[in-house]
Amino acid sequence: MILKVVISVVCAVSVLTVGILIGHFGIDKGSSAPSWVNDVAKDVDEALIEKFLSEVDNMQIQENLRELTKVPHMATTPGDEQTVKLMLERWRDPETGLDDAWREEYMVYLSFPDTKNPNKVTVVSPSDTVIYTAREKEKPYTADQDDPEVVQPYAAYSPPGNPKGKLVYANQGKPSDYQELNKTVDLRGTIAITRYGGAGRAAKAINAAPYGVIGVLVYTDPLDINDGLMSDINETYPHSWYLPPSGVERGGFSTHYGDLRTPYLAAKGNHTDFADITGIPPIPIQPIGFEDAYVLICELGGEAAPADWQGAFNCSYNIGGPGFKQTSAFNSSDVKLETFNHGELKNSSNVMGVIRGSVEPDRYVIYGNHRDSWVHGAIDPSSGTSVMLELTRVLGKMVKQGKWRPRRSIIFGSWGAEEFGLIGSAEYTEQYFTKLSERTVAYINVDIAVFANATLRASGMPSVQNVIFKAAKQVNAAGMESTSVYDNWIKYSNWTSPEHGLIPKMGHLTGAGSDYAAFVHYLGITAMDISYTYDRSKTNARIYPAYHTAYDTFDYASKYIDPGFFSHQAVARTAGNVLIRLADSLVLPLNCSDYAELLEMYLSRAVDLYQTDLCLISEPLKSAVASFRSAASHLDQMILSSDLAKETPMKVRRINDQLMLLDRAFLDPLAFPDKYAFSAGMSTFPGLADAFAKAESSGQSSDWDKVHYHLSVLSQNIAGAANTLCPLFSELKKYN
Amino acid sequence: MILKVVISVVCAVSVLTVGILIGHFGIDKGSSAPSWVNDVAKDVDEALIEKFLSEVDNMQIQENLRELTKVPHMATTPGDEQTVKLMLERWRDPETGLDDAWREEYMVYLSFPDTKNPNKVTVVSPSDTVIYTAREKEKPYTADQDDPEVVQPYAAYSPPGNPKGKLVYANQGKPSDYQELNKTVDLRGTIAITRYGGAGRAAKAINAAPYGVIGVLVYTDPLDINDGLMSDINETYPHSWYLPPSGVERGGFSTHYGDLRTPYLAAKGNHTDFADITGIPPIPIQPIGFEDAYVLICELGGEAAPADWQGAFNCSYNIGGPGFKQTSAFNSSDVKLETFNHGELKNSSNVMGVIRGSVEPDRYVIYGNHRDSWVHGAIDPSSGTSVMLELTRVLGKMVKQGKWRPRRSIIFGSWGAEEFGLIGSAEYTEQYFTKLSERTVAYINVDIAVFANATLRASGMPSVQNVIFKAAKQVNAAGMESTSVYDNWIKYSNWTSPEHGLIPKMGHLTGAGSDYAAFVHYLGITAMDISYTYDRSKTNARIYPAYHTAYDTFDYASKYIDPGFFSHQAVARTAGNVLIRLADSLVLPLNCSDYAELLEMYLSRAVDLYQTDLCLISEPLKSAVASFRSAASHLDQMILSSDLAKETPMKVRRINDQLMLLDRAFLDPLAFPDKYAFSAGMSTFPGLADAFAKAESSGQSSDWDKVHYHLSVLSQNIAGAANTLCPLFSELKKYN
Repeated sequence: MILKVVISVVCAVSVLTVGILIGHFGIDKGSSAPSWVNDVAKDVDEALIEKFLSEVDNMQIQENLRELTKVPHMATTPGDEQTVKLMLERWRDPETGLDDAWREEYMVYLSFPDTKNPNKVTVVSPSDTVIYTAREKEKPYTADQDDPEVVQPYAAYSPPGNPKGKLVYANQGKPSDYQELNKTVDLRGTIAITRYGGAGRAAKAINAAPYGVIGVLVYTDPLDINDGLMSDINETYPHSWYLPPSGVERGGFSTHYGDLRTPYLAAKGNHTDFADITGIPPIPIQPIGFEDAYVLICELGGEAAPADWQGAFNCSYNIGGPGFKQTSAFNSSDVKLETFNHGELKNSSNVMGVIRGSVEPDRYVIYGNHRDSWVHGAIDPSSGTSVMLELTRVLGKMVKQGKWRPRRSIIFGSWGAEEFGLIGSAEYTEQYFTKLSERTVAYINVDIAVFANATLRASGMPSVQNVIFKAAKQVNAAGMESTSVYDNWIKYSNWTSPEHGLIPKMGHLTGAGSDYAAFVHYLGITAMDISYTYDRSKTNARIYPAYHTAYDTFDYASKYIDPGFFSHQAVARTAGNVLIRLADSLVLPLNCSDYAELLEMYLSRAVDLYQTDLCLISEPLKSAVASFRSAASHLDQMILSSDLAKETPMKVRRINDQLMLLDRAFLDPLAFPDKYAFSAGMSTFPGLADAFAKAESSGQSSDWDKVHYHLSVLSQNIAGAANTLCPLFSELKKYN
Repeated sequence: MILKVVISVVCAVSVLTVGILIGHFGIDKGSSAPSWVNDVAKDVDEALIEKFLSEVDNMQIQENLRELTKVPHMATTPGDEQTVKLMLERWRDPETGLDDAWREEYMVYLSFPDTKNPNKVTVVSPSDTVIYTAREKEKPYTADQDDPEVVQPYAAYSPPGNPKGKLVYANQGKPSDYQELNKTVDLRGTIAITRYGGAGRAAKAINAAPYGVIGVLVYTDPLDINDGLMSDINETYPHSWYLPPSGVERGGFSTHYGDLRTPYLAAKGNHTDFADITGIPPIPIQPIGFEDAYVLICELGGEAAPADWQGAFNCSYNIGGPGFKQTSAFNSSDVKLETFNHGELKNSSNVMGVIRGSVEPDRYVIYGNHRDSWVHGAIDPSSGTSVMLELTRVLGKMVKQGKWRPRRSIIFGSWGAEEFGLIGSAEYTEQYFTKLSERTVAYINVDIAVFANATLRASGMPSVQNVIFKAAKQVNAAGMESTSVYDNWIKYSNWTSPEHGLIPKMGHLTGAGSDYAAFVHYLGITAMDISYTYDRSKTNARIYPAYHTAYDTFDYASKYIDPGFFSHQAVARTAGNVLIRLADSLVLPLNCSDYAELLEMYLSRAVDLYQTDLCLISEPLKSAVASFRSAASHLDQMILSSDLAKETPMKVRRINDQLMLLDRAFLDPLAFPDKYAFSAGMSTFPGLADAFAKAESSGQSSDWDKVHYHLSVLSQNIAGAANTLCPLFSELKKYN
């Protein structure tokens, strides 16, 4: 009986168990979660980041660079087309490529010298005899530097012409330099020699023309680039990273960016020459090496130039009689400048690649760099392109193997014709303006990946500081095993933040130094620029010395910039880590409280500077900054205190949209109609600063009105940004 | 034994069943759906719409109107403040109010006459004796028309002044009218009398000044407003809806909209007078009744004006000698215009109300109307405000009772100071520019709800046609039991669409006639304007005759515009239906294929008009329109073919974002920098049409270049819009 009972109980329990099992697993509960419920809640995978970091290979980067720098690849030349094909081939590779890759073409206005009629700089006697000729090409030290495709040094967008006149030395060609010079020298009909730095390239000619100067020379002084060194016998390349005497910096000589014929419109070939081109040199300008500049400057007559105009030459820099000193062999001679540059419409390509997002394909993280160089461009831009190709190889492989698909879409851009004025990236933003503005989470720019191999350098909107720090803490510094990029960085550059204490110092993207410009100033997209850079205790070079010269080759990069390619690797790891976090994080890793901190610092600086004058720093500005801080804290608090993975994805999206669109609120195209695509109203309060400076110097009440106007613009922008951080209106409303 | 087996089996089955039940219901599967899964998939509830329609009450609307029109409520007067308080009280009602309501204040620049020194129009003899004085106030027929708060008829923003000169008749004051007049009359030092219509109010004075005209009068000709009728003994109000002889249309006389001192900036009191005010009359201008205009015009000398300048007076409209005819008692007399208007900074309020969205609180449907009138404003704007209050009562009640909460947030705006130039709505869009631009699904404007009681009239972007039609089919036409608003509408106004066949004709929001302007032209938000309007077979009145006069009262509205308030009810039901659909639909009821149809029509019209001249209609424009069509079809197809309620909410949000942001893509503030806040690039291709007209008339190649430029702008805008309809780039890319 007991047995029977036991058997019955056992049976019953078994049957019950079977029933429970059937009930639990066998019957669809109807309300069970759809498959996408887990997908939408997924966050960044730290293990995947570790895997990514371990796979980034310095030797692959080195081989990428070797491949990219085989021939000169100036924009739209056959060498450029070769790199287009290389990018497409890599990004379409079935094992390591992206989901998709294609080219986007634009018909853009470029400027070239005449290969049959090289530009010339000569000294000619009063009887028109040539008594000195500046070097037309740089002296080759290796076979590649002697490639016939090495373009003659020239100033792109300089007009053709053959001005001849007495030489003067105009320092850096700033407005104040010509103003100073004009006090003692009649500049009409002169040729001015200037050194790089202090003013934009085109500005050196634009600033000169109103004084009657008819031609401009520009060179790089050894003081500014070579820490004073000059000799290629033992001091400069090929013995070091320093610029040889015949090295010449080429460049785009325009103050605007984007295709000059089609402002605000994509250069798609449907334009006439309607748009008047402005911002280019009105008079011929030509760059020369310091070897020739030495000969010209040291023979100049007239008074000695001011102390801060003196460079590294072992002679007095005189301002010019105008012209050469009486004791010189050049006495009474003129300098003659013959330029044969011509404009040309050329087909320039961006190469685009995409990894499609799984959950939010309509959110884009864009990573880009230009592809075109002036000559071989090993550092500028191929160091960045080598890094980008290594990133896409590692990420592409994970995608192709089915191991990873980012939450958001990633777009890679290999921009064309950057050297002529950020043209490829600007045309891209013009063509896709609305779409990019509405959907882009962030833009990461890695142009020159390695200026030097000492430390990380990062610039960007304040909201990206946090994610860059996080990534930099996870990556080993170049060539170090137990020091992170972050710990190394903080040694070279730091400051004490009221909120975070001692942290590395980030830069701002205020200018138009690389392809981030159109994203920042035209679209208002959160952006950053990442590279490795100098130990400033070791050099004062304004940039790495081979910049834009024929010496920026694989040999130079691998011997003197980053032997072993460990700095390239550190940049690839750091930027890739940031990229993955932006693409995969459930909540975008953009920090609006760091934005608030910066605004508060600007405000307090503005109060210090202007308050005493006129009680200028008005209550609306103070209250706008306070609103921003309060909205930022509120949003931060909400992110920290919620388990967003468990909440509706609409809430996550809402928060992410607020973070994504924050920088758009600072964009005010209507407030600065006179500044071409420099419409960001915030940054360092530049509108206010400019207006204040002008009002202080003029004292006119209409100028003070403009100061008030800029205060209003600023207050509205910051209050508007605070508003975008709130889900609804009621948070900021006041009852009456 | 059998029994035992049976019992055992029964027991076993029972136990199994219990097990299954426990397994199924008792154990959490872990993967069961979170509660929000159903919420995010919810679509519009048709039963709720039926309930809404049934609750909209014509008598409530009538009582709202009675309340709103008790006193004159010109912007910023005590009467206006009374309506502010009324709105706040209604929207904060615990039973029928909204979630939240508050006021937003702006310090705006208005213009008023001097109550102690009324503006005067007189005829003065050469010896300066006044021989005729125009009426200073309208003749009262009811007590409210005699209210001391009835503002004297005046032209807001007309400067003060006292010009005196010979009178001329300048028709409608268009540029061509003054040009024509100037052929035979020396206009220097004259006063021009003009009739309303043909040109904007301010334009009548702005166009006159260059010819030396020193003052302008403006009146409403009975031909244009009264179907020719003139007598208040038996023809005009109080016997009909027609304008009595002394009625005068007031108005804002400026060509821009928004606060004139603070373009692009919210008028928050932190501005100086920096901004130069443009677009207002440079010479005094004053409106008068046709009673006085009759006396002045019929005495004019000179030649008879052209046939199309003649109005309804029983005399010849002569152009003026200049001045009166020799046979007139006014012979050699001047007309003297004395205006004492002054500008004033006044605190104007918007009243804002919100119903918070449940699923997507960060998506806004905005419904608005202005609150300020010129006098009692029964029709303009209180007919619309009465409708809005009835909508918020019905919707508020459902919210307060817990029966409804919309998917998206609904914002109600009761704008201030519209009559002075759409100021409240413009300042609102300036203050919240980024936030509104990023989050607003659509703007619904119901200003004058009922011009007349014949048929619905609707204008808007092409994408809203579909939802308006859907709503109009569900609502009974005013005063009809078996005819829908839609079926009634199609009888009055229709066209044959290539895609839909015979449908009602929608208008476009191209001008700045009401508060939709800033939403459309400045923000690029999808918008519509809804009202009931005339049977055009019965009247040619350019607008309802009491417009902007002292006769626009409750008596007038309830007797002659909408007795029984059935048209108000039909508008409330139709607009409310559209509002609920926009707020609640899973997929936004915005149709991009209807946009494509309109673009194709514009294209084909442009081809007809311009093709033969210069092969102008370039391939990029054609291909942009084709891309738009293809993207629209693709998106439509995706919406139709998917069961989006079952898919990830991210996909729904993506589609909705594409639909919401479509109109933003047509906004190009940089392409038309010279047109103040009229930056929509598309619409009827206005940039192209203007440029073409100018080029054809001048024949200059620089003007033809501008035509090409506008073609490029247009092509890029349309292609950009097509792009925003695609989730990624790859859909539109071309491989090389």
